Amino acid sequence: MTSIKVPIIENILEANDFVAEENRKIFSEHNIFCINIMAAPGAGKTALIVKTIELLKDKIRIGVIEGDTASVTIDSDQVVMAGAPAVQVTTAGECHMDAMMVRKGMEQLPLDDLDLVIIENIGNLICPAEWDLGSHADALVASVAEGDDKPWKYPNIYRNLDVLLITKTDLIPYVDYDIDHFKSGVEILNPGLVTFPTSAKTGEGFPAWTEWLLKKTKAAAEK
Amino acid sequence: MTSIKVPIIENILEANDFVAEENRKIFSEHNIFCINIMAAPGAGKTALIVKTIELLKDKIRIGVIEGDTASVTIDSDQVVMAGAPAVQVTTAGECHMDAMMVRKGMEQLPLDDLDLVIIENIGNLICPAEWDLGSHADALVASVAEGDDKPWKYPNIYRNLDVLLITKTDLIPYVDYDIDHFKSGVEILNPGLVTFPTSAKTGEGFPAWTEWLLKKTKAAAEK
Repeated sequence: MTSIKVPIIENILEANDFVAEENRKIFSEHNIFCINIMAAPGAGKTALIVKTIELLKDKIRIGVIEGDTASVTIDSDQVVMAGAPAVQVTTAGECHMDAMMVRKGMEQLPLDDLDLVIIENIGNLICPAEWDLGSHADALVASVAEGDDKPWKYPNIYRNLDVLLITKTDLIPYVDYDIDHFKSGVEILNPGLVTFPTSAKTGEGFPAWTEWLLKKTKAAAEK
Repeated sequence: MTSIKVPIIENILEANDFVAEENRKIFSEHNIFCINIMAAPGAGKTALIVKTIELLKDKIRIGVIEGDTASVTIDSDQVVMAGAPAVQVTTAGECHMDAMMVRKGMEQLPLDDLDLVIIENIGNLICPAEWDLGSHADALVASVAEGDDKPWKYPNIYRNLDVLLITKTDLIPYVDYDIDHFKSGVEILNPGLVTFPTSAKTGEGFPAWTEWLLKKTKAAAEK
């Protein structure tokens, strides 16, 4: 018998990362692009997702995995009304989603019939940054109402992002928010990060953002 | 020898609660009222604290313990400028403050010369709800820009509050926010909760809120 070296899975994050890697493989095998959307509570994740579905649903097939700390279906109901299958994963008070929750959500989605899976993470700027879910891209939604100092206050979440969505730009006239100051903070943490200023109310920025997402989704399908 | 039963401290929360109880006792021995202010990122905790200090600093002596995930001093600088001693406690990426962090902050404050200590918790609606810091009251700051569905989405944090501050009411005309819907959700979780709608911009609600806080502080001093 030859000696087989089995590395021990050391900690909860390592186990998580193992499942995340598998999730990513499963998505890729189905030619699906998966994006994980993070944000503070009330930043406008659901409004962004609903509008994105409305604009893209005739071009690609979209499924959503909704993370919620409580078992209310407010968000998933809105997503279903917008025309996409949604699975709600309740974290029962946990402060972030993990790869296993996403796996359970994936099992409920018709993966063979999807091109894009959007994960709506728990509203939290700290804990979700640590947990790989198995997505191909990580996005952050940052509302102008939160203030322009957030990159300095919550730097970790900005470091590994692939795309940043500034939301509620229609509120800029009514809040103290200097978009250049905000962007200068982001630039320190994540140079050259793709950034879309958007408003779900006025539609500003949605053509550019959905074009970016469509391009990524099509590239994943062609792999 | 008589048998002495020593209960074992079982978990991290039990150890935390032990320190928290001590913190509360130390505050009380110094005739200090301590309030823990929680919120989502960007809800306006710092603006509320700064304005509260400005309005109360001639009546009572206020100290602030600032929790931050990163070692930036944006918030504590603002508090010091408003005229109160502030200690910044950096959680080094942790998603909440705990009783030990507060203890370390207390050690840096001139407790003999204070009537009120305000703890500005980390911006997070989930994790801070679990951790007793040793305060006499827990407050939540909820901005109207976050939306009126938050009690349903983040119920745990509403359950044990002593006071609720609705902030940025000046934005109500520009956002979809039904204050009665919001309050109806709060009422289910925490019936009769003392609630102050406020705007740091217009000053709305600050006379009532600061009067409540002053009354609590004076009652603590007389005990």
